[in-house]
Amino acid sequence: MSPNARFLGQAGSRARLDTPALLIDRAALDRNIAAMAAHARGAGVALRPHAKTHKSLAIARRQIDAGAIGICCATLGEAEIMVQGGVPGIHITSPQVTEPKIARLIALNGASHKGLSVVVDHLANLAALDAAARGSGRRLEVLIDFDAGQGRTGATSEGSLRALVLAALAADGLAFRGIQSYSGNLQHIPVRAERRARALAALETLGGVVARLRGDGIAVPIVTGGGTGTFDLDPEGRIFTELQVGSYVFMDVQYRQALADGRNTLPFETALYVGTAVVSANHASHVTTDAGLKSFATEGPPPEPASGAPPGSRYEFFGDEHGRLILPPGSQKPELAARIECVTPHCDPTVNLYDVYHVVDGDRLVEIWPVDARGKR
Amino acid sequence: MSPNARFLGQAGSRARLDTPALLIDRAALDRNIAAMAAHARGAGVALRPHAKTHKSLAIARRQIDAGAIGICCATLGEAEIMVQGGVPGIHITSPQVTEPKIARLIALNGASHKGLSVVVDHLANLAALDAAARGSGRRLEVLIDFDAGQGRTGATSEGSLRALVLAALAADGLAFRGIQSYSGNLQHIPVRAERRARALAALETLGGVVARLRGDGIAVPIVTGGGTGTFDLDPEGRIFTELQVGSYVFMDVQYRQALADGRNTLPFETALYVGTAVVSANHASHVTTDAGLKSFATEGPPPEPASGAPPGSRYEFFGDEHGRLILPPGSQKPELAARIECVTPHCDPTVNLYDVYHVVDGDRLVEIWPVDARGKR
Repeated sequence: MSPNARFLGQAGSRARLDTPALLIDRAALDRNIAAMAAHARGAGVALRPHAKTHKSLAIARRQIDAGAIGICCATLGEAEIMVQGGVPGIHITSPQVTEPKIARLIALNGASHKGLSVVVDHLANLAALDAAARGSGRRLEVLIDFDAGQGRTGATSEGSLRALVLAALAADGLAFRGIQSYSGNLQHIPVRAERRARALAALETLGGVVARLRGDGIAVPIVTGGGTGTFDLDPEGRIFTELQVGSYVFMDVQYRQALADGRNTLPFETALYVGTAVVSANHASHVTTDAGLKSFATEGPPPEPASGAPPGSRYEFFGDEHGRLILPPGSQKPELAARIECVTPHCDPTVNLYDVYHVVDGDRLVEIWPVDARGKR
Repeated sequence: MSPNARFLGQAGSRARLDTPALLIDRAALDRNIAAMAAHARGAGVALRPHAKTHKSLAIARRQIDAGAIGICCATLGEAEIMVQGGVPGIHITSPQVTEPKIARLIALNGASHKGLSVVVDHLANLAALDAAARGSGRRLEVLIDFDAGQGRTGATSEGSLRALVLAALAADGLAFRGIQSYSGNLQHIPVRAERRARALAALETLGGVVARLRGDGIAVPIVTGGGTGTFDLDPEGRIFTELQVGSYVFMDVQYRQALADGRNTLPFETALYVGTAVVSANHASHVTTDAGLKSFATEGPPPEPASGAPPGSRYEFFGDEHGRLILPPGSQKPELAARIECVTPHCDPTVNLYDVYHVVDGDRLVEIWPVDARGKR
């Protein structure tokens, strides 16, 4: 139980929370979910949003309620949580190759009655999944992963992709469902024209591959990919049947900075913050807060003060459990115990550092949601 | 329950674990604990090791069993876990200033019967703690925090320190126990001579302040500080009554790199690893693993491959859930599902990403310990 449960429903409670606390602006979250759902409907593409961002059953259910056909997961542990929570249409976007992971995957496939699929990018893995699924008496749905140029996972040529597709079609334990191609390397290209050109080039390659499979009489029901940075470009290619966007629910400093060339604002709002408190204030130049390396993702830009800090303040990490809010000259120093809310540097790994979301409506704490799949691998 | 519990005690189980997994080499851990205990005994200084590194009751108990007089905590949540676990002599090294934190601290002080103290660096915070402790009917032990030059927490002048000491002595709700002065900014200075000079300079300042308090008849039973990087320099100053070293139990790439000028090897071994598996192997230049931004601290150097990787391999982050092991030309590529163990970049925030330690003895998984205070603030 969060020590903040006692504040639920109280006016002004947002400013009195125990810190550091992960905050969701519920109205902004719901507007983001509705905006992406409307976009997908308008573009004639399905949505299977990515739970790696939020790891939350409450948010997955909001996405499903808004029309999503399912939920993507980056880890098997996330998928286990989503299946246990009754979320339909789970797709695992990373290959599952070790013996313990295959055993867990087959057990999950047996327990799942609302749809489960996984990507494959290697013939040896495909054979291992086939053997395990045949032993379980239940087919496992697979998508073949095609490398769009990132080099992380996926078949690297049309020939190797076709070999995997044919092997999946021939495998008694597997059911071939389609192709995944994710361009993670394109999501943060700052200039929209360049991002568009590269996204469409990747989609043209993918489209040719898929068309030639279909030309050979192979049904390819699903073509999945895309991300928040290319959310409005991906449907242009008319290749994807569904999008696996994730970060749009929350947004973060990475997306705000990367896609901020002025003509290029995404129609999504910041809905996620970390609330931190001033714990030491003995200097004119800065105050020390209680949110450091263990309370924010650290691989990107620094957190961005959003409220409670003088205009022009900068946030720096100051050790495991502390931050340094550097004050502009002549500004009024926040008092001891003052709350400062920050936009998160990179939303996904920040969320993974917290057990619960504190859901706020204006100045009021209204709900506490668990980060159900926090740390689940 | 970890999915790896079924492997407990099996020969060769270390190489078959579900990944990513946080591993402790138990023999190396115990040698590190014994080496630091012997050092402190030899130097005539007490040990109150820092639990922010390990967040583990099992490891805290091993440190106490080796002679430590107590355990330091960076957060109140860590202290709550340690007190609940019966660990004696808990000292909280960061100021606790907000209303929710003060309420929890006073409740913990009431529940604790084996020693609890906290630092203070501001008169307003001291007054708030005094009022709350008086209301609880139980004195709260406090140490005054003195800023050794890092600028994070602590009184910044001898005058403000003395004012805090006098206020603590005069406060009916508080019991003044001593001074804390932590030089976090000195721990990773690479050249030993410079590290020594700066550590001794800070200690000389601190020593003067403490001597003048004692000269005025004020008892200062505890002077605490120090870290793994200055573990053998801190006792030279003859100022600290106890050391709050943390990272020595595990070591990490940061300490290995920073303190590796050749004449400067610390007598502590790497005892902590992350075990990861190859999940995609479609390139000659690299393989993709299952440990990324959510499985390692990312604010320091990259993880360092320790076993399972060809000599000369480099590890890079490759997204939330993936790493890229870049292979030297001509090397043999690890196979799909092969395990690769890495030294952690910075041990403390890496540990905080895991629910359990997988404790290994040679090639065998022998125990699973919870990371009891993971995410506790």
